[in-house]
Amino acid sequence: MEINLREIHSPADIKGLDLEQLHLLSGELRAALMRKLSAHGGHVGPNLGVVESTVALHYVFDAPTDKIVYDVSHQSYVHKMLTGRIDAFLDPDKYDDVTGYTCPRESEYDLFEVGHTSTSIALATGLAKARDLQGGKENVVAFIGDASLGGGMALEALNYAPELRSNIIVILNDNQMSIAENHGELYNHLAELRRTNGTSHNNIFKALGYEYIYVEEGNDLRALIKAYKAAKDQPRAVLVHINTMKGHGLPCAEADKETFHYCAPFDMKTGAPTHPSQAESYDDMFALRMLERMRADRRVVTLTAGTPGAVGFGPALRHAAGSQFIDTGIAEQDCVTMAAGLAKGGVRPVMGVVATFIQRAYDQLSHDVALNNLPAVFVEFYGSLFGMNDMTHLGFFDIAMISNIPGIRMLAPATAEEFLAMLDHAIDTPDGPVVIRVPGGAVTRQDTPVNTDFSRYDIVEQGADVAIIAEGPFLATARKAAELMRAKGVTPTVINPRILSQVDAGCLDSLKSYRHVITVEDGILDGGFGQKVAAYLGTSPVKVTCLGLKKEFLDRFSVPELLRANSLTPEQIAELAN
Amino acid sequence: MEINLREIHSPADIKGLDLEQLHLLSGELRAALMRKLSAHGGHVGPNLGVVESTVALHYVFDAPTDKIVYDVSHQSYVHKMLTGRIDAFLDPDKYDDVTGYTCPRESEYDLFEVGHTSTSIALATGLAKARDLQGGKENVVAFIGDASLGGGMALEALNYAPELRSNIIVILNDNQMSIAENHGELYNHLAELRRTNGTSHNNIFKALGYEYIYVEEGNDLRALIKAYKAAKDQPRAVLVHINTMKGHGLPCAEADKETFHYCAPFDMKTGAPTHPSQAESYDDMFALRMLERMRADRRVVTLTAGTPGAVGFGPALRHAAGSQFIDTGIAEQDCVTMAAGLAKGGVRPVMGVVATFIQRAYDQLSHDVALNNLPAVFVEFYGSLFGMNDMTHLGFFDIAMISNIPGIRMLAPATAEEFLAMLDHAIDTPDGPVVIRVPGGAVTRQDTPVNTDFSRYDIVEQGADVAIIAEGPFLATARKAAELMRAKGVTPTVINPRILSQVDAGCLDSLKSYRHVITVEDGILDGGFGQKVAAYLGTSPVKVTCLGLKKEFLDRFSVPELLRANSLTPEQIAELAN
Repeated sequence: MEINLREIHSPADIKGLDLEQLHLLSGELRAALMRKLSAHGGHVGPNLGVVESTVALHYVFDAPTDKIVYDVSHQSYVHKMLTGRIDAFLDPDKYDDVTGYTCPRESEYDLFEVGHTSTSIALATGLAKARDLQGGKENVVAFIGDASLGGGMALEALNYAPELRSNIIVILNDNQMSIAENHGELYNHLAELRRTNGTSHNNIFKALGYEYIYVEEGNDLRALIKAYKAAKDQPRAVLVHINTMKGHGLPCAEADKETFHYCAPFDMKTGAPTHPSQAESYDDMFALRMLERMRADRRVVTLTAGTPGAVGFGPALRHAAGSQFIDTGIAEQDCVTMAAGLAKGGVRPVMGVVATFIQRAYDQLSHDVALNNLPAVFVEFYGSLFGMNDMTHLGFFDIAMISNIPGIRMLAPATAEEFLAMLDHAIDTPDGPVVIRVPGGAVTRQDTPVNTDFSRYDIVEQGADVAIIAEGPFLATARKAAELMRAKGVTPTVINPRILSQVDAGCLDSLKSYRHVITVEDGILDGGFGQKVAAYLGTSPVKVTCLGLKKEFLDRFSVPELLRANSLTPEQIAELAN
Repeated sequence: MEINLREIHSPADIKGLDLEQLHLLSGELRAALMRKLSAHGGHVGPNLGVVESTVALHYVFDAPTDKIVYDVSHQSYVHKMLTGRIDAFLDPDKYDDVTGYTCPRESEYDLFEVGHTSTSIALATGLAKARDLQGGKENVVAFIGDASLGGGMALEALNYAPELRSNIIVILNDNQMSIAENHGELYNHLAELRRTNGTSHNNIFKALGYEYIYVEEGNDLRALIKAYKAAKDQPRAVLVHINTMKGHGLPCAEADKETFHYCAPFDMKTGAPTHPSQAESYDDMFALRMLERMRADRRVVTLTAGTPGAVGFGPALRHAAGSQFIDTGIAEQDCVTMAAGLAKGGVRPVMGVVATFIQRAYDQLSHDVALNNLPAVFVEFYGSLFGMNDMTHLGFFDIAMISNIPGIRMLAPATAEEFLAMLDHAIDTPDGPVVIRVPGGAVTRQDTPVNTDFSRYDIVEQGADVAIIAEGPFLATARKAAELMRAKGVTPTVINPRILSQVDAGCLDSLKSYRHVITVEDGILDGGFGQKVAAYLGTSPVKVTCLGLKKEFLDRFSVPELLRANSLTPEQIAELAN
């Protein structure tokens, strides 16, 4: 008996299989996944852990009539393999035909573009309510990991969903891990539920009105199918708690779950990266500087909301930082507001955060931090078009979001030296909140001293008639453009603004007699610093051109094409001197 | 024996009182509160419910050394009375000396400016961690209502706080009400805990690692003092669940808890408003139109996140709307993302929301709604400088926040007719998400037909040389300014932009030959629509002046003064024609 994965075109093709065949299928799927992931990179651990539960899901439920909503959706690869997209997991030249997340543009089996955590139960609740209003009978399933469950919206929705008094199934994929380890007492409670084989009297899910089903062997098809069948078609909220193993079946991933949460191509036997990088990085630089600062002063702390590795704090550095390193789990709101409390309590909190995730705490930044004028520091990584390029992880909307909140100083260094000087300045000058936007792309160095008056624009090259004000990684672009302009006889002034949340009136006043001012930013134009400059200079005769990105969600773009499409290359900028 | 409230200058003044005296004190405080609130208005129910618990709190704990953090802080009036601000509750001419929320500018007993829910546990966690790092010994107390506990960040922090393994005390003020009724299964669980006098085996707080203390008589001083003493100085997380009554002691407030959550001056005997208003309002208009739409089509639903009354849906209208009215409780994230799920499920969701609270769901608006291009509608009230003026409830940061999210059409009607036409248009044209910003101030009518091409600016008065583009309530201001200009021989073009999330290139191109374009918006300048106009016209010789508010947090401002300070009066705008 053999399973040919290429013959799996839709879940209908697995409905007739018996248990043994489903086992074989799972084995084939896992082997194919390992081949692709080791060659291509991706979310290794989450997907290897849910092979069986995904097979069982599509065996028991009838998608796309029954609706399955994945939380984060970085564990949806097997789902994609079973819903008409198997080639993208078998043929190396088709590996990039699918995104790393659910994607309605790819398939009717995918309901939402998702990439942030903690959304699935709320989305499912909406689908279930829509079904009920229209007299539908389909099942609605939210598939959520234990780490995502700790996020605020997941808990809000977990609380609300049973109030529908209607079919909604939450599958809690408990692999006992976040990206790194979990934080919060909920995880001790989940451990208690696992320890008691789901029989603990105290059961948070039962307390919240769920019918509760526990599956000890979350990688066992028979147990999963039985549980899913019990949950199916129930006219109430059911929570199926499945105990799975992240990285299941791949020894290196089972052994080092944090490294193999997401990783670049690797050797399947040793787990070693295929293309190890020795390049210096801003996250390492940040972590080392913070460690130094924390060692020198017990009142300095570093915070993260579930992404320690992304901000340079691997296990060893976390251990070294000890109680001065705080990980709230994937709970950005709690993390930002805890930083406000820490600042009020006399401590200097520095939160490292990935740009796409800081938007999960807008109210907290605005009210708890900025309105209270508390000296908390936020160091934002990948806030750049040179950062992540998945549609759900874009980092170039942050200037519009953060720089317009009153009271926040948003700083944008152009080099490593400037970054570290700003970080030290923010820690040493407790004068309200500071957000530092770490430059995207490769680390850039400067050999001149850093001008530390960060409330002022920095004139990098003094010229006349034309000025280019370019922030972050575009300062280098501007300098190249200036060189091209000089070849044409125009000597522009090149300015590094550094602060994006206010204009430097003195500097801009000095440009009113210029012919042309060009702003360049690593973000969308709308709501950005260029528009502030244009408005400030609106009553002067000087011509102002704002360069930056069009306001749109992009998916897996090519950086060079994006730069050209938005007139952001040195050559295009130089053209403007004409 | 008598208690003279004027002799209470700090909590030290109540430490020596015996139980009987504390009773008398509570009675005096309640009577004074009722006198002030009935004459002045304010948060009636929340404060009357916590008189005893606040007295007990300051009797047992030693503020300001011990740190008390109020959630929302609309229940902090008694706390203010006991911490040096009693005159503001006794002398009618000093009633406005205190804000309606905790305010560090007023007193060292107030730690944070707070007005949004669900922040207290996270803030307290930060204070507790700061204490531990510095070797402090003080107690840290978060005082949070049952409704606030359902908000995402409160649940995140509830989960995280016990991980400190250190002193933190959460007082859960369970008055069995939100602003309106509570939603979510947590509230059935709290009812079970009350029913069993706190002895239920299933206990979500114990599951999360808290030592749990239940106080059945939450308005009884002896029981409260005993419980607080038991919680004090414990080196762990303790949750004290107190069963209180909203509006306690004022019959009309006990009988109608929703009306007396917050209310304007009223007659203490009858509960009737002192100055009943017959003026028409946008919230009533919204609710009636939605009711009509819901009756005509079962696939239209109205949502709110805990503020049904603020969007026109009092108890009678909620009843009339039946299952098509959804209240998620104070869980804006869940509500917005549920709207996304509803839209995906073929239903037309319309969420009514107060501007200051929509910022609690930025990530949800951006990702779950906009990135997925789902036709959910958000009708935003008090997004205006003519709206609420408490520092924690300002509504004029929303244009910067929302209009720069890709894919959201942000519409700003200037009149009632335009508002209703936009609402119908948004429901009838399911083409991605729409945010409608209800005009602030009194209802304005128009007697001309509504131009329903809402992607274009509307030329209201055709002139030459000077154009005023003014949105929302400032359209009327602009027309007055135009009149003043005409008296000086300038005939300006007056434009109602209606859409704030994009510029109307065709219209703006036609203004390039003008001498001066003036934009006026009901929000901060930074990130607003005026700066988009300035940037678009930056390469043209036309002069552009952007009018709007300076980016700052203001507290209880005078509208006329604010208008003058920002050159927003008709006279000041007319001056610009010179």
